Amino acid sequence: MHRELTIDGMFEKLIAGDRVALSKAITLVESSKEEHQAKATQLLTKCAERDSKSRRIGITGVPGVGKSTFIEALGLQLIANGRKVAVLAVDPSSDLTKGSILGDKTRMEQLSADANAFIRPSPSGGALGGVARSTRETVVLCEAAGYDHILIETVGVGQSETVVHSLVDMFVLLVLANAGDELQGIKRGIMEMADMVVINKDDGANAAYTKMAVAGYAQALHMFPAKESGWTVPVLTCSSTELRGFDEILATAEQYFALMESTGRLQLERAEQSRFWLYRAIDEELRTRFLHDPNVQHQLEVLEDKVALGKIGPFEAARELLRNWNQIN
Amino acid sequence: MHRELTIDGMFEKLIAGDRVALSKAITLVESSKEEHQAKATQLLTKCAERDSKSRRIGITGVPGVGKSTFIEALGLQLIANGRKVAVLAVDPSSDLTKGSILGDKTRMEQLSADANAFIRPSPSGGALGGVARSTRETVVLCEAAGYDHILIETVGVGQSETVVHSLVDMFVLLVLANAGDELQGIKRGIMEMADMVVINKDDGANAAYTKMAVAGYAQALHMFPAKESGWTVPVLTCSSTELRGFDEILATAEQYFALMESTGRLQLERAEQSRFWLYRAIDEELRTRFLHDPNVQHQLEVLEDKVALGKIGPFEAARELLRNWNQIN
Repeated sequence: MHRELTIDGMFEKLIAGDRVALSKAITLVESSKEEHQAKATQLLTKCAERDSKSRRIGITGVPGVGKSTFIEALGLQLIANGRKVAVLAVDPSSDLTKGSILGDKTRMEQLSADANAFIRPSPSGGALGGVARSTRETVVLCEAAGYDHILIETVGVGQSETVVHSLVDMFVLLVLANAGDELQGIKRGIMEMADMVVINKDDGANAAYTKMAVAGYAQALHMFPAKESGWTVPVLTCSSTELRGFDEILATAEQYFALMESTGRLQLERAEQSRFWLYRAIDEELRTRFLHDPNVQHQLEVLEDKVALGKIGPFEAARELLRNWNQIN
Repeated sequence: MHRELTIDGMFEKLIAGDRVALSKAITLVESSKEEHQAKATQLLTKCAERDSKSRRIGITGVPGVGKSTFIEALGLQLIANGRKVAVLAVDPSSDLTKGSILGDKTRMEQLSADANAFIRPSPSGGALGGVARSTRETVVLCEAAGYDHILIETVGVGQSETVVHSLVDMFVLLVLANAGDELQGIKRGIMEMADMVVINKDDGANAAYTKMAVAGYAQALHMFPAKESGWTVPVLTCSSTELRGFDEILATAEQYFALMESTGRLQLERAEQSRFWLYRAIDEELRTRFLHDPNVQHQLEVLEDKVALGKIGPFEAARELLRNWNQIN
């Protein structure tokens, strides 16, 4: 049924901006089959040889903050400015819920109909490491296909923010201006990752609280150590439904990228991210192999309980497990 | 030269509170020699069988905040209340600087002379994993020797705070009341780990700023999500030189431990910590073995450069490295 395409053929179509070829290429990198992985590697190597000046932007925020509406408005504005936009999502829970996968496309109606936008739901695929890998490789494919702005949404489940933060150049935290404890819903550590805080839904009843919220977030951000780049994290406001505030958001993003590029930090951080994923992929695979060993599995169950009860120290338990693994490897 | 002691003999002396035996036992767990490790395991297993109701408290703060003076004052107050106090340090840099090792003992003059205090400098020993292991095992030995309060100082270098945080029941952040940007010197993420913030040096010229600093820290702490235990992180003040504030600090610590014990969280968090160290020890050892493979070493050098330059994806590079390792293992 599935017509075979050579990797060279797929690559040519991909760099010509063919959306079907891009979709197929993404399906290829998402596949865990050995033969697909080999082909994906070939394709990615060809893509990596091309220079791309893309901007990778991560977007996070608690459920209900309006991420999809914001991304749609931002994407349409970018396209109006002559850009090509790819929207990806990292949702390690998508195997279970499915909802969010379909949700994105139907919610971003206008953007998904635009010829200069490409929307791809989160890969399903178990471990976060797997989702991270396919998303990162999908970014490379989208860039080769000419998309110069890659927006990656995190659903805020598990470690998804940390993953997205390690995949992008700029991390945007979307928040609401509610009265009172507006920060309480935000997960630990997220605020520190943000390169820009945007108060969404600056309209209707919320608008009354916006000024106070801007001051509150600015103060909270001031509590954190300065960014190494020297960048001061701004607090901006917007209304995704009334389409206000996006000019300023994009102008500020422009300043951010100008700073990151002129200081060489953009390249530096991408190189750091690549090294991070290299070692993380190695660690994950080593642990998987270790834990899949039947001898280890059995012994680990027993030892983990003893460790949790304090009947054996964790380091001794690790030593014992590794000693036994040694004997059979 | 070194008189051999059986493990049973060492254990008996240890639980009788013999300080020399405790020192020797710590030297044993700190040793990386295979035969010492085997003996250490025997000893630790015997110690782990004993029930101990100790309190493990971590203390962090930037250089100059007065950690040693604070720990000495806190330790002396605990001893005055009938407690036995062990003071440990986690200093992954101690191999290089040495200074801090000697420093501790000379600085904590009064405490180190007290029969109910036991002070042990940071183990030297390369990787942070190694330092963590010996410190954690030293805690077990000190508890078996009857020390009911274990104070662990972090020097704030590298990942030492994270390590100490994963070794203790309560984490105290020591700060100063300076005018202005008092939070700027604090490393990312440290504030969120704190179970108690103490403003030290509430004396002399600093005292004028204390009230403002208390309000500032309380506000900053309010920005973080609530602790799972329901504990509200308090901001207290003290003067380690004028010995003021320690009654309140200890009374608040009492409340903290009462909450943690009555809700079962103390046990739960210790079990979680043990599991964390089990898996971390496994990961570290697996990575060490992998990276020590000469074939891997050579190939990694080449691939890491290519990854950093974006010429090959990190996941592909990992796959290639692991494929080759497979062939020879």
